[in-house]
Amino acid sequence: MDRSIFFLDQDKMPTHWYNIQADLPEPLPPPLHPGTKQPVGPADLAPLFPMEIIKQEVSQERYIEIPDEVQAIYRTWRPTALHRAYRLEKALDTPAKIFYKFEGTSPPGSHKPNTAVAQAYYNKKEGVKRLTTETGAGQWGSSLAFACNLFGLELKVYMVKVSYNQKPYRRMMMETWGAKCVPSPSPDTKAGRDVLAEDPDCPGSLGIAISEAIEDAATSKDTHYSLGSVLNHVLLHQTIIGQESMLQMEMAGYYPDIIIGCVGGGSNFGGMFLPFIKDKISGKKRDLRIINVEPTSCPTLTKGLYAYDFGDAAGMTPLLKMFTLGHGFMPPPVHAGGLRYHGMAPIICHLHKLGLVEAQAVPQVATFAAGVQFARTEGYISAPETNHAIRVTIDEALKCKETGQSKVILLAHSGHGHFDMAAYESYLTGKLTDYAYPEEKVKEALASLPEVTTA
Amino acid sequence: MDRSIFFLDQDKMPTHWYNIQADLPEPLPPPLHPGTKQPVGPADLAPLFPMEIIKQEVSQERYIEIPDEVQAIYRTWRPTALHRAYRLEKALDTPAKIFYKFEGTSPPGSHKPNTAVAQAYYNKKEGVKRLTTETGAGQWGSSLAFACNLFGLELKVYMVKVSYNQKPYRRMMMETWGAKCVPSPSPDTKAGRDVLAEDPDCPGSLGIAISEAIEDAATSKDTHYSLGSVLNHVLLHQTIIGQESMLQMEMAGYYPDIIIGCVGGGSNFGGMFLPFIKDKISGKKRDLRIINVEPTSCPTLTKGLYAYDFGDAAGMTPLLKMFTLGHGFMPPPVHAGGLRYHGMAPIICHLHKLGLVEAQAVPQVATFAAGVQFARTEGYISAPETNHAIRVTIDEALKCKETGQSKVILLAHSGHGHFDMAAYESYLTGKLTDYAYPEEKVKEALASLPEVTTA
Repeated sequence: MDRSIFFLDQDKMPTHWYNIQADLPEPLPPPLHPGTKQPVGPADLAPLFPMEIIKQEVSQERYIEIPDEVQAIYRTWRPTALHRAYRLEKALDTPAKIFYKFEGTSPPGSHKPNTAVAQAYYNKKEGVKRLTTETGAGQWGSSLAFACNLFGLELKVYMVKVSYNQKPYRRMMMETWGAKCVPSPSPDTKAGRDVLAEDPDCPGSLGIAISEAIEDAATSKDTHYSLGSVLNHVLLHQTIIGQESMLQMEMAGYYPDIIIGCVGGGSNFGGMFLPFIKDKISGKKRDLRIINVEPTSCPTLTKGLYAYDFGDAAGMTPLLKMFTLGHGFMPPPVHAGGLRYHGMAPIICHLHKLGLVEAQAVPQVATFAAGVQFARTEGYISAPETNHAIRVTIDEALKCKETGQSKVILLAHSGHGHFDMAAYESYLTGKLTDYAYPEEKVKEALASLPEVTTA
Repeated sequence: MDRSIFFLDQDKMPTHWYNIQADLPEPLPPPLHPGTKQPVGPADLAPLFPMEIIKQEVSQERYIEIPDEVQAIYRTWRPTALHRAYRLEKALDTPAKIFYKFEGTSPPGSHKPNTAVAQAYYNKKEGVKRLTTETGAGQWGSSLAFACNLFGLELKVYMVKVSYNQKPYRRMMMETWGAKCVPSPSPDTKAGRDVLAEDPDCPGSLGIAISEAIEDAATSKDTHYSLGSVLNHVLLHQTIIGQESMLQMEMAGYYPDIIIGCVGGGSNFGGMFLPFIKDKISGKKRDLRIINVEPTSCPTLTKGLYAYDFGDAAGMTPLLKMFTLGHGFMPPPVHAGGLRYHGMAPIICHLHKLGLVEAQAVPQVATFAAGVQFARTEGYISAPETNHAIRVTIDEALKCKETGQSKVILLAHSGHGHFDMAAYESYLTGKLTDYAYPEEKVKEALASLPEVTTA
């Protein structure tokens, strides 16, 4: 019987992260200080991040060793399984070969702990006692809670209030791992109090939660801030996914023709495709297609402007050169909370600008149709974010059926949907709707980009 | 770095289930017809079960081949990982070596699909078009929904009403896999209507739900009934767990001294220990300890009577010789819904009577303390049922600390607790309580055992 799971033995687990900066055809545009508009230096970031992470952010070394302590914790659930989706292939009657790398078996249920563990480790090592962060739907907050608990760090998570109320299970996960989680806007920070004074019933936003977490870290003793996506070091930590996948695809006897993943901040998919894209850059696999999938309602790569913008809504972070819908843009309330972000990882944007990766936007209802088809063939119930990638995987497989081509598709499956069942019910009962691309809102948000963009 | 996960390659996945009936020192007491009190024959069971399963129920063959179609679906998530719990060992400062076999990575999140897939397959093969079943907390209902969907069988699940309302996510899972799920008591059966006529607000019970599912199967065309635990064929299908574990323990270089698991109907733990107990029976590992863990509030093995009793509350099933608290016993509402059962698998009861396995009862709060300790060391958040086994695993490891013995403990980890976070919150906020052993209620229930018990 053909193998449908390719387990990688722990003895073969990669011991280094892969750093794409060593192989970029052109260097990344540097992040700029929001005040001076000059490239930020390590000193600018030191109040928020440990020095080892600041170094990784700009490192040009090709491989960076994964500390033993981090590897030991990865080995709680890693290497994750690479699956062959035989039943989905059969249901689609496609000659395509579909593989998926499944990150849903980590204790928090997604790829997020790959960086959470590393960040907690470096902070602990440099004497930090406490971290702060924000979370939307809770994937990131619960992953950092899991990681901080293992290193004996305190954690306070500012969770967007509407999610805090809608998804109590994610909050309870954080508490089970010993973290403190408060609804944002909260009375605990000036940023939160200001918002509450103006609107006591404010449902919160990721932007406000970031502002609260940063203020808390900057004004508290022995406290740092931690970010779950977008930045170079976060993508670096996630490359464990792609490196394992390369070895597992080799075990399966194939090399992918198309790699597909969903992108919000871009860390999951970056982690998957970066180790492969060096083969495209080097010419070893020139025709490799890499497809970033985003929601129609928050189409950063497909409709955004490539410009310097803030990473957060309040304008406190360094300016990042990225495709952006404007830091003031408030995406519609799609269920894929992890994809509701105005910007995108500078590394992915740079590669997109260079024409090395593609992007597609897909509407919400079609992603759940794909997710249900996946659940009814492959079994696993996927996160709403992942359903975006599954949609395009199915679309590409169906194209193969038309053309008769037997392409090899590798899907980055970022996690399970156990805490998103209400969204599935909404779809199954016909209540789920699509959100049109909010063109006017984006125009408005893009009008207030920081000035450097025109410099 | 030492391996903490032992992956078993799919090429080495066992291709046969192990049937303990071939190796029992004394044969099992036969099930009796509830009317005649004579041993039931295949014809008595044919209205509810496919013939292949009826044969398995009484088979004396040592190994029964797993059909290719079932193996192919097992291979969606199997072989499951065997983990070494290094961080838990360290936290306990014990010389014990703790391993856990983790069934939480199956699509429904527990061991239940091991038998659900087999039962759906045999029913499909014999031309059945539709199955019915009951479910409490929803682990079993969702597993059978997953399995029926893959074989194109219709499924109707009668879900205990109180759980239907409290755990809507489990219902939504079933619906995502295409099953129909109704709250029980329902107006769809005579059994349900009778209860509703007397008490329109009845919260339901597993006993009532079984009666509804059996009535539906017996009175509908092309419809069979499916049971998720207790019976011999269910334990047989679960032996894939123990057989994989044997190979994985061999990879790890150890043989267990103590095997620990939680028991409600007994299928998860039976599936784990049966392949090992043959070594105890044969004398190869005479001192192997096998500990069945049950709730103090529903202590079937530790306080029950070994007698013939009905499997369901309404008295519709054959009489099974088992430890029982009386089929009329209504267990207190502990969070471990899967352990709220008055009886126990006849195979486990027989082995207990023969002195080949032990049993321990543990109170609820202590099980959650253990579950939180496990989550904060090993990472995974476990089902409330599993927490019972974790409690005794920790207790045994602490005994090793006292005695200085380096025992090898194998824990049967039956599944994750993603749909039980409310129970964790209740524990973390100090609201969780213990339930005393309801001695008077058990006495009352045992007083109404069917007459054969005294024969």
